[in-house]
Amino acid sequence: MSETAISPVVILCEPQMGENIGGAARAMANFGLSELRLVRPRDGWPNEKAAANASRALHVIEAVKVYDRLEDAVADLGFVYATTARSRDVTKEVRGPVHAGRHLRALDAAGVRSGILFGRERWGLDNDEIALADEILTLPVVPEFASLNIAQAVLVVAYEWRKAGFEGEDVGLPFGPAERSPPATKEELMHLFEHLEASLEERNFFRPTVKKDTMVRNLRAIFQRTQLTAQEVRTLRGVIATLEGRTHRPTKVKGPAQTPAAGEGPDEQDGEGDGA
Amino acid sequence: MSETAISPVVILCEPQMGENIGGAARAMANFGLSELRLVRPRDGWPNEKAAANASRALHVIEAVKVYDRLEDAVADLGFVYATTARSRDVTKEVRGPVHAGRHLRALDAAGVRSGILFGRERWGLDNDEIALADEILTLPVVPEFASLNIAQAVLVVAYEWRKAGFEGEDVGLPFGPAERSPPATKEELMHLFEHLEASLEERNFFRPTVKKDTMVRNLRAIFQRTQLTAQEVRTLRGVIATLEGRTHRPTKVKGPAQTPAAGEGPDEQDGEGDGA
Repeated sequence: MSETAISPVVILCEPQMGENIGGAARAMANFGLSELRLVRPRDGWPNEKAAANASRALHVIEAVKVYDRLEDAVADLGFVYATTARSRDVTKEVRGPVHAGRHLRALDAAGVRSGILFGRERWGLDNDEIALADEILTLPVVPEFASLNIAQAVLVVAYEWRKAGFEGEDVGLPFGPAERSPPATKEELMHLFEHLEASLEERNFFRPTVKKDTMVRNLRAIFQRTQLTAQEVRTLRGVIATLEGRTHRPTKVKGPAQTPAAGEGPDEQDGEGDGA
Repeated sequence: MSETAISPVVILCEPQMGENIGGAARAMANFGLSELRLVRPRDGWPNEKAAANASRALHVIEAVKVYDRLEDAVADLGFVYATTARSRDVTKEVRGPVHAGRHLRALDAAGVRSGILFGRERWGLDNDEIALADEILTLPVVPEFASLNIAQAVLVVAYEWRKAGFEGEDVGLPFGPAERSPPATKEELMHLFEHLEASLEERNFFRPTVKKDTMVRNLRAIFQRTQLTAQEVRTLRGVIATLEGRTHRPTKVKGPAQTPAAGEGPDEQDGEGDGA
């Protein structure tokens, strides 16, 4: 997104604590917002605690604009959400963060400057301040424990705005899974199974005999579900061989329903060749 | 949700700052999580700063369990997410918070205890700790400003878990719009329009005459879009009457394309009756 692209402004009305201003800036930067406006910050501006709590969001802190009146802070905006935790007796729509994120993106796309207004730590916004907004925004908190601080509320809204800028779900993650070697082919898997099952059969693992087929299927299901890579199959075959006490993998492999032929004991299965 | 319902456990590995433990507890409580486990908290436990920063989440702080080893903190869990900000060279799925929220709910429903693991403030989790988890969880932050603190990361995940417990979007908000009086009927609106248009016509507002119909439609569109309540219509009619200098609303109203009949000036329209 270019620097000249429109994005919502965050407005804090009479923020009391520098830590919260810094936390709000930090929340904003993580999710792509950068314009922060303060109306009558209690401790004035600049504020050392705000900068100290801003982490990598110093660019937001440095660009903060300070206003004496909320009317001036929203003057250039075409749409404002007032974020509140408690119901107000006022005839405005009440929206959740998912809707708000999408609507804010639509406003961005239409070139309309928008703002998200947050109130004081203890008592939020007063009704005159809410009157300056278009709609109310509230978060789906559990009512008996509702106590999000300003920075946390900013975080959730900024996060939803960030998500709404992507098509699809969980897009925009900073990384994906590590590159992995290709999956084992079914032939490679079958050699692993046969190797394992032969070893177990020799050691009388599949008892009673009538349950062998089921036990074999259950074992194979474990490894199928693991989606082993070719490398992992080789590793497991080495594990099996080590446990058997062999240094080489057997060259002859048996199918699942067979028992060792007479005279064909473990020693005769040692071989130098690569059976897989 | 009953107290015995299963919900994810939040695990902080070697948290350095009591403020972040408190912030994490606060984030959890707001979105319905309550079980917090700490592995080797740097400043021990209990921690005054944690309690001081927990706001209404003291019940979470009081129920904290402390462990010497991460293995013990996850011992009873069937599924664990390891939350990281940076890519790791490890063969695990990488998920975003939306997917994780839904998956955690599915685990809850299946009676499987789950955990969400977060690392140290500065350097997160090491690879051995990640190895204890099933999948990696990461948040869609802007890479160049990625600096969410532990409490902020907990907040986003807890928020998505909360949302995933509801059907539909933006459900679970603590309140909705204030009850409003019923919408005005079209008849009430028409009386408002006719009142306003008659007043404006008398004062030669609709000039040039050829544009009157369009101007009337545009005015009516404003008020239609506002979805006025019956009370609001009455208020606006009083506003118009006051501006006109009247104390009573006119009884005779004119249609949009008419001009006042000869001899029928403002005074003769005053009446005591209720024309609306």
